[in-house]
Amino acid sequence: MEPLFSRAAILGLGLMGGSLGLALRATGAARTVVGYDSAPGVFERALERGAIDVFAISPEAAVASADLIVLAAPVMAERELLCAIAPHIAPGVLITDLGSTKEQVIAWAMELLPDGSHFIGGHPMAGRERCGIEAAVDGLYHNAIWCLTPTTTTNADAVASLTALIHRLGAIPLTLEPATHDRLVAGVSHLPFVAATALVRTLDTSGDWTTLSRVASGGFRDTTRLASGNPLMARDICLTNGPAITGWLDAYIEELRRWRECIAAGDGATMLADFASARTVRDAWLAHRQDTP
Amino acid sequence: MEPLFSRAAILGLGLMGGSLGLALRATGAARTVVGYDSAPGVFERALERGAIDVFAISPEAAVASADLIVLAAPVMAERELLCAIAPHIAPGVLITDLGSTKEQVIAWAMELLPDGSHFIGGHPMAGRERCGIEAAVDGLYHNAIWCLTPTTTTNADAVASLTALIHRLGAIPLTLEPATHDRLVAGVSHLPFVAATALVRTLDTSGDWTTLSRVASGGFRDTTRLASGNPLMARDICLTNGPAITGWLDAYIEELRRWRECIAAGDGATMLADFASARTVRDAWLAHRQDTP
Repeated sequence: MEPLFSRAAILGLGLMGGSLGLALRATGAARTVVGYDSAPGVFERALERGAIDVFAISPEAAVASADLIVLAAPVMAERELLCAIAPHIAPGVLITDLGSTKEQVIAWAMELLPDGSHFIGGHPMAGRERCGIEAAVDGLYHNAIWCLTPTTTTNADAVASLTALIHRLGAIPLTLEPATHDRLVAGVSHLPFVAATALVRTLDTSGDWTTLSRVASGGFRDTTRLASGNPLMARDICLTNGPAITGWLDAYIEELRRWRECIAAGDGATMLADFASARTVRDAWLAHRQDTP
Repeated sequence: MEPLFSRAAILGLGLMGGSLGLALRATGAARTVVGYDSAPGVFERALERGAIDVFAISPEAAVASADLIVLAAPVMAERELLCAIAPHIAPGVLITDLGSTKEQVIAWAMELLPDGSHFIGGHPMAGRERCGIEAAVDGLYHNAIWCLTPTTTTNADAVASLTALIHRLGAIPLTLEPATHDRLVAGVSHLPFVAATALVRTLDTSGDWTTLSRVASGGFRDTTRLASGNPLMARDICLTNGPAITGWLDAYIEELRRWRECIAAGDGATMLADFASARTVRDAWLAHRQDTP
């Protein structure tokens, strides 16, 4: 198949950016993949792993002549990258990102990028708890839901180009309003990682962790998996999606309080009904989910 | 190797009991494995799968001539089983269980079982979210921590016999006071499944589940895995370990409130430190855990 882009620049070569580079090269979606990462040693590994064709020594150098630019850094770092590349972007260039929250990033893009460039916020739902170029894999985006958040001012051809790219990578595009996206992922992704982290801390700070850790088993492992994620990414999500996350946290705390009262009262009938309904909901979701099981 | 028991009776042939039958037969730890289950159709599958040698039509019939009796039912059902078998137990017989909470079960055993029988509460930390005989696997207990909760009145020879059995099955015995066991597993196991269930319900009852479910991905899947567990087992745990679970729930809600305030205040430094410390704690646990990864 023909390449969709001549030169794709990926800024940030961690799990998400590195996996994108591998997928762009495996599918031939871009003729050349240029990479940039601020961390020492990453470019050698990205080249060795085949995630990029060329390494650039700065964001500015990476985006020169690129017709696709992908920001693949924690959200707060995206602002710096936008500042750095803004003066070097030619008209018509498509710019997207892989960040976990969208409203703030879109506001920065509108503030910083030149007229005539096309920014579309993106967010593939394909995170893992491991991070860095070593964790990158070719198939990360295969069958993943890939959220797109164009605004009313976004160029329709640019949306079509990005949609074609997502299809080429084997992912499933899902268009959402930026605010809707941020509220939804706050529920299904940000609330779970705060809940997982809070669970680890509740046990860790109890004074009994030494014994608890001996008894902890598969249930603890899975429920807390997200607590092993990238702390910088998690912090940036909380800094840029605060109201949505605290809204979900309020609802979660309320639900937990309800459980607390139900358990304290020994209300077995309510417990049984609620455990059963949660199982039904989750099992139906598992059976019908569109992305990779 | 020589059998440790002549005739082992397993009451309840679900995930835990069925897996025990498979393991007893695979290791030759018991010469004959007798099974009982109250649900229709289970005995055929248990026989077909090789989890038992013989099926008994009642708990009473199952325990006749047995020198090892294992209760492998949800906790509340253990009381009924104890009532049923109590008149049929010969002196010196070893009785144990695989239930998730121990204080209540031990109290029932002391109340109901005849003098001269030896009850020791047990709890292998090897649950899975699937249940039933179909989910049973031979290796379920391999490398699993197997909690034993003898009391001051428990016969020492009986403890030694049960410990030998646990070793034979490839598991790791861990002796704990019953109350300590219940408090610890409330933290590492019962709190996680209430947290997972509450998370599913928070999203499900938000009015947005249809859209949320499209965006939900691997993070949601793992954080909520325990919500797919057996609702009866979960209810029985909450009914028999209420104070320990509500104690942990209070601490968890307090920790979540702290996160809520931290996120609302945009306190990035505290968030980063806490995300990082949780990751360190969990990763160290993963690296050093004794049971099967």
